[in-house]
Amino acid sequence: MAVHYEHIKTCKQSGARLGKLHTPHGTIDTPVFMPVGTQATVKSMSPEEVKDLGAQIILSNTYHLFLRPGHELVKRAGGLHSFMNWDRAILTDSGGFQVFSLSEMRKITEEGVHFRSHLNGDKLFISPEIAMEIQNALGADIMMAFDECPPFPAEYDYIKASTERTTRWAERCLKSHARTQDQALFGIVQGGMHADLRKMSAQDLVSMDFPGYAIGGLSVGEPKDIMYRVLEDTVPFLPFEKPRYLMGVGSPDALLEGAIRGIDMFDCVLPTRIARNGTVMTSQGRLVVRNAKFTDDFGPLDPNCDCYTCQHYSRAYIRHLMKADEMFGVRLTTYHNLYFLVQLMNRVRQAISEDRLLDFRDEFFEQYGLNKEGSRGF
Amino acid sequence: MAVHYEHIKTCKQSGARLGKLHTPHGTIDTPVFMPVGTQATVKSMSPEEVKDLGAQIILSNTYHLFLRPGHELVKRAGGLHSFMNWDRAILTDSGGFQVFSLSEMRKITEEGVHFRSHLNGDKLFISPEIAMEIQNALGADIMMAFDECPPFPAEYDYIKASTERTTRWAERCLKSHARTQDQALFGIVQGGMHADLRKMSAQDLVSMDFPGYAIGGLSVGEPKDIMYRVLEDTVPFLPFEKPRYLMGVGSPDALLEGAIRGIDMFDCVLPTRIARNGTVMTSQGRLVVRNAKFTDDFGPLDPNCDCYTCQHYSRAYIRHLMKADEMFGVRLTTYHNLYFLVQLMNRVRQAISEDRLLDFRDEFFEQYGLNKEGSRGF
Repeated sequence: MAVHYEHIKTCKQSGARLGKLHTPHGTIDTPVFMPVGTQATVKSMSPEEVKDLGAQIILSNTYHLFLRPGHELVKRAGGLHSFMNWDRAILTDSGGFQVFSLSEMRKITEEGVHFRSHLNGDKLFISPEIAMEIQNALGADIMMAFDECPPFPAEYDYIKASTERTTRWAERCLKSHARTQDQALFGIVQGGMHADLRKMSAQDLVSMDFPGYAIGGLSVGEPKDIMYRVLEDTVPFLPFEKPRYLMGVGSPDALLEGAIRGIDMFDCVLPTRIARNGTVMTSQGRLVVRNAKFTDDFGPLDPNCDCYTCQHYSRAYIRHLMKADEMFGVRLTTYHNLYFLVQLMNRVRQAISEDRLLDFRDEFFEQYGLNKEGSRGF
Repeated sequence: MAVHYEHIKTCKQSGARLGKLHTPHGTIDTPVFMPVGTQATVKSMSPEEVKDLGAQIILSNTYHLFLRPGHELVKRAGGLHSFMNWDRAILTDSGGFQVFSLSEMRKITEEGVHFRSHLNGDKLFISPEIAMEIQNALGADIMMAFDECPPFPAEYDYIKASTERTTRWAERCLKSHARTQDQALFGIVQGGMHADLRKMSAQDLVSMDFPGYAIGGLSVGEPKDIMYRVLEDTVPFLPFEKPRYLMGVGSPDALLEGAIRGIDMFDCVLPTRIARNGTVMTSQGRLVVRNAKFTDDFGPLDPNCDCYTCQHYSRAYIRHLMKADEMFGVRLTTYHNLYFLVQLMNRVRQAISEDRLLDFRDEFFEQYGLNKEGSRGF
């Protein structure tokens, strides 16, 4: 089996899982946060830096690589690992989310989705079979079934029909997946914010026996307490012995709440995206380093951080670089934010091993200026 | 003395000099190419990378740092070395060239230059005394006297008057330089393309006994053979025991021709600037990696290069990154170009030590597709 999950222990206090995800490119300690390298690069970072800051696996985007440079080119380069010089694990998403959020003039049929490229307007088509062909060419350790991610809010009937179609598409993905020996295909549970549809989706997909399950269609604009409730409505229907991946979620509070609800894997552009605007996560909460109040601040971004950025550079210097549009500023904030989330997950795993993840969450929320329900400060 | 030049040997074939430049932040083998870090960062690079590729000294721009973040801020940060985390040598230019090339609404008086910031239109003023105040605050190992860089072409009489004023400004710089114990102030020879004015400028400045001399006002649009002739008209009037710095020159052919004419130091934005457009210097001459013909080229930028970029990344991958506006592409091309010039200077020094720099130049020009006079290929 290309990928399998090894359960180490369950936190007696919270129910969170400590585990290992074995892949052809290394074993990953879970729960894990996966940095996003949309276009075969984690924006502004070198592969060595992404390793150095502790990332065990990265995500890359099928939709973007299909458009540019094209999956056939990546295949000729020897696959994504070789193309981008990354020898740890990679997960590619299905392309579904981006087709529905980025492209133009979408038309969904049973066969697949017709759309226009957001880059040049080209007419394109992705079906479950094509999504598998693309991801087989990219060659990531973990690939995702092609799904529809319905908007929030949407009518119950639409979400039900969409979820059933996603299930039919998942079956077609399983059938057309050509590299089962070295690539694991995960199913994606949909169902909007409806407990009955989530249950239906999970049960249908579990009956197909995927090696892992993602929860999609969350973090699409709904309040966080609804997201947490949907997790509680979904996770119990997922098999204990398979990894569980919450897609597109990466705020510190949601990582904690997700782990507490039994999630093993997370990804999000949040740390890299806000870094490019000069916003960093620190032990005092979010900090906008471009702000004038940091002009003369010669301290590090976070006095409690020992990352490369915080060891060598001041808020004043980083602010100067950001104001002057210097790339090195983005490198420094990106490195720090990714390190922050990787360190947070290290602490989450430690807390699980000590059966105190609820206590850790409360301490973290207190220290970082968050209330238990919300996302204040992040 | 803050900085002094140690002559090692003269190439018997070419007259080029092999030497060492001793500074408070390390000893530099000359002839040397200095990468440019305009805004207290070599664009896209970390200090560790700039060291790793072999740079011994970098240049930073007084005009830019005066405008943003301001020299007083850099001083409060402990100086430029501390501010930007660079512990090797730094040279700051005088600000003169940028005042005349970048700013708006310039008005030159005997006292100094009134101008408007190219960033926000602020009315500003730099005099020789203010240029020293700024550079003393920045704290570079080598600083430059405030000069006027006249346009090319310009009337003889204008250049003569300007050159005489630059000499008077140089005297005022010497008088107001407040950190002679740890910062060396170099004079800048001007005089346009006129041999008599260059001689006059050199002799006047040499009589003031600067610890080093720059040749300014070249590479401003004149043909290269004229630049080389001006070097031949100027260098003989500079003292043998002081370092000689040709400002703003960094094409491979001009580095060779400059060294042959007795130059010890060079700087230029060329390698970093063309890198941002996806143009690299290789053993086959310039290569525009964005070109469609490299779409499927899985070889390195330069098969004869052993830099980080060429060891790990293909032309196809770098082209993809440049087309997708990914910063990491610029990092890879910038690293390669700076490495290329640093390696070239290593070979120049080796050729001097073997008394064969003219032979090396001919071999290099042949291999790299250049003719002796010109800049074809670069």
